[in-house]
Amino acid sequence: MLKISLISIGDELCIGQVINTNAAWIADQCTKLGAAVITHSVITDNKEALLSDLQRLSKLSDVIITTGGLGPTHDDITKDILCEYFDTELVFNNEAFANVKTIFERLGRDVTERNKLQAMIPKNATPLQNENGTAPGLHIIHDNKHYFSLPGVPHEAKGLMSDHILDILENIIVHRKHSVYKYKVLHFAGVPESSLADILSINDKVLKGRTLAFLPNYKGIRLRIGVEASSISEADLQIQELENYILQRASQFFIGNDSDNLSVTIGKLLKENNQTLAVAESCTGGMLGAYITDIPGSSNYFEGGIISYSNDIKSKYLDIDPSILEQYGAVSEETAVDMAHNVKTKFNTDFGLSITGIAGPEGGSEEKPVGTVWVGLSTPESTFAKKFNFGKIREINRERAVGMALILLHKYFTA
Amino acid sequence: MLKISLISIGDELCIGQVINTNAAWIADQCTKLGAAVITHSVITDNKEALLSDLQRLSKLSDVIITTGGLGPTHDDITKDILCEYFDTELVFNNEAFANVKTIFERLGRDVTERNKLQAMIPKNATPLQNENGTAPGLHIIHDNKHYFSLPGVPHEAKGLMSDHILDILENIIVHRKHSVYKYKVLHFAGVPESSLADILSINDKVLKGRTLAFLPNYKGIRLRIGVEASSISEADLQIQELENYILQRASQFFIGNDSDNLSVTIGKLLKENNQTLAVAESCTGGMLGAYITDIPGSSNYFEGGIISYSNDIKSKYLDIDPSILEQYGAVSEETAVDMAHNVKTKFNTDFGLSITGIAGPEGGSEEKPVGTVWVGLSTPESTFAKKFNFGKIREINRERAVGMALILLHKYFTA
Repeated sequence: MLKISLISIGDELCIGQVINTNAAWIADQCTKLGAAVITHSVITDNKEALLSDLQRLSKLSDVIITTGGLGPTHDDITKDILCEYFDTELVFNNEAFANVKTIFERLGRDVTERNKLQAMIPKNATPLQNENGTAPGLHIIHDNKHYFSLPGVPHEAKGLMSDHILDILENIIVHRKHSVYKYKVLHFAGVPESSLADILSINDKVLKGRTLAFLPNYKGIRLRIGVEASSISEADLQIQELENYILQRASQFFIGNDSDNLSVTIGKLLKENNQTLAVAESCTGGMLGAYITDIPGSSNYFEGGIISYSNDIKSKYLDIDPSILEQYGAVSEETAVDMAHNVKTKFNTDFGLSITGIAGPEGGSEEKPVGTVWVGLSTPESTFAKKFNFGKIREINRERAVGMALILLHKYFTA
Repeated sequence: MLKISLISIGDELCIGQVINTNAAWIADQCTKLGAAVITHSVITDNKEALLSDLQRLSKLSDVIITTGGLGPTHDDITKDILCEYFDTELVFNNEAFANVKTIFERLGRDVTERNKLQAMIPKNATPLQNENGTAPGLHIIHDNKHYFSLPGVPHEAKGLMSDHILDILENIIVHRKHSVYKYKVLHFAGVPESSLADILSINDKVLKGRTLAFLPNYKGIRLRIGVEASSISEADLQIQELENYILQRASQFFIGNDSDNLSVTIGKLLKENNQTLAVAESCTGGMLGAYITDIPGSSNYFEGGIISYSNDIKSKYLDIDPSILEQYGAVSEETAVDMAHNVKTKFNTDFGLSITGIAGPEGGSEEKPVGTVWVGLSTPESTFAKKFNFGKIREINRERAVGMALILLHKYFTA
């Protein structure tokens, strides 16, 4: 297998001011090629830390990818350290300078002396054209190992990976005849983790050297099949076989593959059936709509919704009878049912989804503690609501309510 | 300074299936105590990788915190490796077993043989009561260094940090008389990074050994002041001085401190002024509402909104004249102005915010390319809309539109 290590450079990452989303994205892309990402290392803007990681990880890996520290300011140390590590020096590179100039021309700005420094790169490096910024990516081959350096800005790092590096890595895998490691993720929802495990009753005879990992989150359970094989097509065959085994047993809880999360899957179902959806949200304040419209093309089936955060708006724009709000409360079966039904009718859609709950930390009572959420679904045939308690943490509450609303709608299609 | 290293264990992290939010959260908490988090290492569920990281990082750090690999299944290797590393063995621990039993009783479930294994811990470890799961945390002191092991499930890891570990770390810092490193973050918006740098004209004389980092994102620029000092109070003084310098020069773009992001700051302003807000969202599909209602207590000033994803809904529920949609289009100044004004009037609030744009990847034209977004603000005095182009990436587009809507409202209060 092609072994890859990632080094993310930046104080802001170490101290936790910024979450390291870059590393996950890059690792995911490399994994999809069949490479094995063996470690991510996050270090401060510190010379010794980077030098020591380069030394350590070059022994363990075929490829090292660094992000961060390539900008034009004093704390951008990566290029200097690369020179020290490879015992070389910075030289002015015409190709890199062309990159800098192109970007500045596009912005209608003049190239300053400081920006010219961005065209200085280690003598043994090849610049990689950065379409989204002024710092070129770097590619160095040394002792049959590949080193890539990218800026830390996420869309610049992603652009350089997509435009250059993934192709180079794929070529290495093919030419060196590396075995590949491949994964496939199956999404399930509406079933507890332990029940799914019981239903599947996985053992070594079923696995035959493959791996199967259970990863629950607020929107369901992700099953990850992993396999090492001599080629991507051989890996696909082995994955397919285990996937068949799993789906024969648990298809009723299956949502979709890989990036087919609940939003994507429900979008496909609605589009296939030429049906439409509207939402009525209270405690989630728009999160359900935001999640549905994450998907390009969602305008084909999503009409919109009403964010009825206050009771006033629930009465005025969702026609919830004030006597219902008074008698049963805003967080009640009656309110959730009327919200789902009325938004469907008003927006003239096939389905209406509603969420009303107590997100916390305030507003709970003995009868309705924080975390109480009613989720309503109105279909062409009927309307109902279900009660949940998602616990005390506001953020998790809201996430789970959104997930559950989508699961209810998904069940309508698959039941 | 108390040097802390984090080790996150899990294939799902290495391959990029899961983003390492745990490490950022833990690092942030440790940093707030004045400790120096020097590295995060992400490794696979692999014995040699964990052993080698324990050896390597114990030389560099006073404290090592591991997350992951503490569950009851075969791929949970952490406890075995700790035994190997410390040359000890697993023993049954009554206190840990009491933890397991408590959690199962709360869930109304019986303790199985498999779960009893969770009470087996390394002989030299002290169990830390986990309020959110069955795997106890572990605390080991060895050669004057502290090792903590936590489960990988985020709310379990967070609970153990908050309930036990932060107190222990604070005690170590105080007793060993470590110097502390402290940070403060100031949020700015509505000004380009380079202009803010020019306004501040920071140099070594101003910094006096302190650090100042610029971190732009889609909602503005975060300035991070850092300082090493003999105590938290001494650090606070030095930070305050630099903060004063900065605010004297750039107060007009200042949003808030640390966790006071745009949502929090705008919530405070609305509450102080006893004013209310409603939103009308097209391409963001509810994201603006979701972001505003992230904040507990937002019901004090947020009434709700209309998600008008389709033109039909724009006409029917936001009273946008169909002739305006036809003549100028849904993505136009006219539509954005009417959306903001009408949602304010209909929801009877003081302010209305609107967003209408082409999020992409489809739907762009030469005149209105993907990324064209109109953001509208209706105040008690007037209504206007501003045009932006946020580029081709759907996700970034929507994020920036939400940020810009909040910046417009913030400017109303601070201009």
